[in-house]
Amino acid sequence: MTRFALTLEFDGGPFMGLQRQALDPSVQQSVEDAAFAVTGEKVTMHSAGRTDAGVHALAMSSHIDVEKQIEPFRLMGALNAKLRPKPIAVTDCRIAPDDWHARFSCIGRRYLYRIINRRAPLTVTRGRAWQIARTLDVEAMHRAAQALVGLHDFTTFRSAHCQAQSPVKSLDFLNVRRAENAIGAEEIVIETGARSFLHHQVRSMVGCLALVGMERWSEARITEALEARDRQTLGLNAPPEGLYFVQAFYPDT
Amino acid sequence: MTRFALTLEFDGGPFMGLQRQALDPSVQQSVEDAAFAVTGEKVTMHSAGRTDAGVHALAMSSHIDVEKQIEPFRLMGALNAKLRPKPIAVTDCRIAPDDWHARFSCIGRRYLYRIINRRAPLTVTRGRAWQIARTLDVEAMHRAAQALVGLHDFTTFRSAHCQAQSPVKSLDFLNVRRAENAIGAEEIVIETGARSFLHHQVRSMVGCLALVGMERWSEARITEALEARDRQTLGLNAPPEGLYFVQAFYPDT
Repeated sequence: MTRFALTLEFDGGPFMGLQRQALDPSVQQSVEDAAFAVTGEKVTMHSAGRTDAGVHALAMSSHIDVEKQIEPFRLMGALNAKLRPKPIAVTDCRIAPDDWHARFSCIGRRYLYRIINRRAPLTVTRGRAWQIARTLDVEAMHRAAQALVGLHDFTTFRSAHCQAQSPVKSLDFLNVRRAENAIGAEEIVIETGARSFLHHQVRSMVGCLALVGMERWSEARITEALEARDRQTLGLNAPPEGLYFVQAFYPDT
Repeated sequence: MTRFALTLEFDGGPFMGLQRQALDPSVQQSVEDAAFAVTGEKVTMHSAGRTDAGVHALAMSSHIDVEKQIEPFRLMGALNAKLRPKPIAVTDCRIAPDDWHARFSCIGRRYLYRIINRRAPLTVTRGRAWQIARTLDVEAMHRAAQALVGLHDFTTFRSAHCQAQSPVKSLDFLNVRRAENAIGAEEIVIETGARSFLHHQVRSMVGCLALVGMERWSEARITEALEARDRQTLGLNAPPEGLYFVQAFYPDT
């Protein structure tokens, strides 16, 4: 048995999420089906994050265990060939130690959220960002975000379906800035990192920060919502299409 | 009659190009149809560039003449409402002088070309960039590109269907660099500007520079191809999905 660490990039649009569902298309099912086509083995894929329907990944870390003797480079090419035309790509594949686990060994996760702040509908970024017509105060959003950094009970920012044992998480950073890349002049980028996140935590934080940016919420209300530890005080859950799982971190990497 | 200057952003994927075709969907036809729905007038749209099928625009400059009394802000909103769900957006709309012409007044055009340089297939950037598996020598591409800057006869880099009177054009700049934005780590960006371009010129230049990057062409061969003034010496025409019309420039702007 060889454990292969896979790095996955995918467009979340056509999937009901990363995790396998009973009937709906998922990233996990797609990769497991591709692995079966390549190896004849029914593998189970484990991943660092469990992204929702519509959420994208730039470099999700996953692993599968395979009996068949195959070089990582060949496995990657074969999986990509079988995954076509689905918008899932294996961008890296390497042999991992048997005790390395994409989910349980992960010590850090980073997400990116893209907002296009303009009145006109999206075209080249459609399905890849959240369009907000009202002009956002990016500096106020960034200031307000700092109240969420550190060790907190994030019950307010947690989905009712969250399976985490504790709502207490330590947020390493949460930065809001205007993007400087050429594609999409009105783009705002929110970057965040933590050891782990609660279900819907990033989208819930982004939704409330957007309310601050629109001046519908005061900056102080972020702290009030956090301290309330009550999902009812949540203002808004940002839509999934703006969210990207960026990277997973492990010891020694 | 009021002349409205429109700024258009569009995903070129679903269209046979910017310019109206007899039967096929075009950006021009779509905007003219939207304008008819808003004003009841059969307008003709003129644009700074004539992008091909599949080529995108971030800020194409166009104009239409309208008899109906309407505020630019309202016209923009109404056109965007009628354009849905097509991936075309009017991102700016303002009143222009009657003698201002989106095509004939234009004194500068800029294009961007995106390459994703990796073996894995594209997912979130599919239809938005050219995927090249072989590792490209970006520095060699940039050096070779400098031979094309300045006043030259670009016959080699001109489509057989080009309607320009002369193949002599002055290229202001042609820069090849690695992109630094977060979306797409392996991204290479080619930026170019000129008063005007020949049909297929940008894609033809990019195609040959890619051959240099793959080391299938020497850097000197770019100069040889240019000096040959012969379309037969062209190495490769880059695919349309990586090309973006970025901006048009006018006197006093």
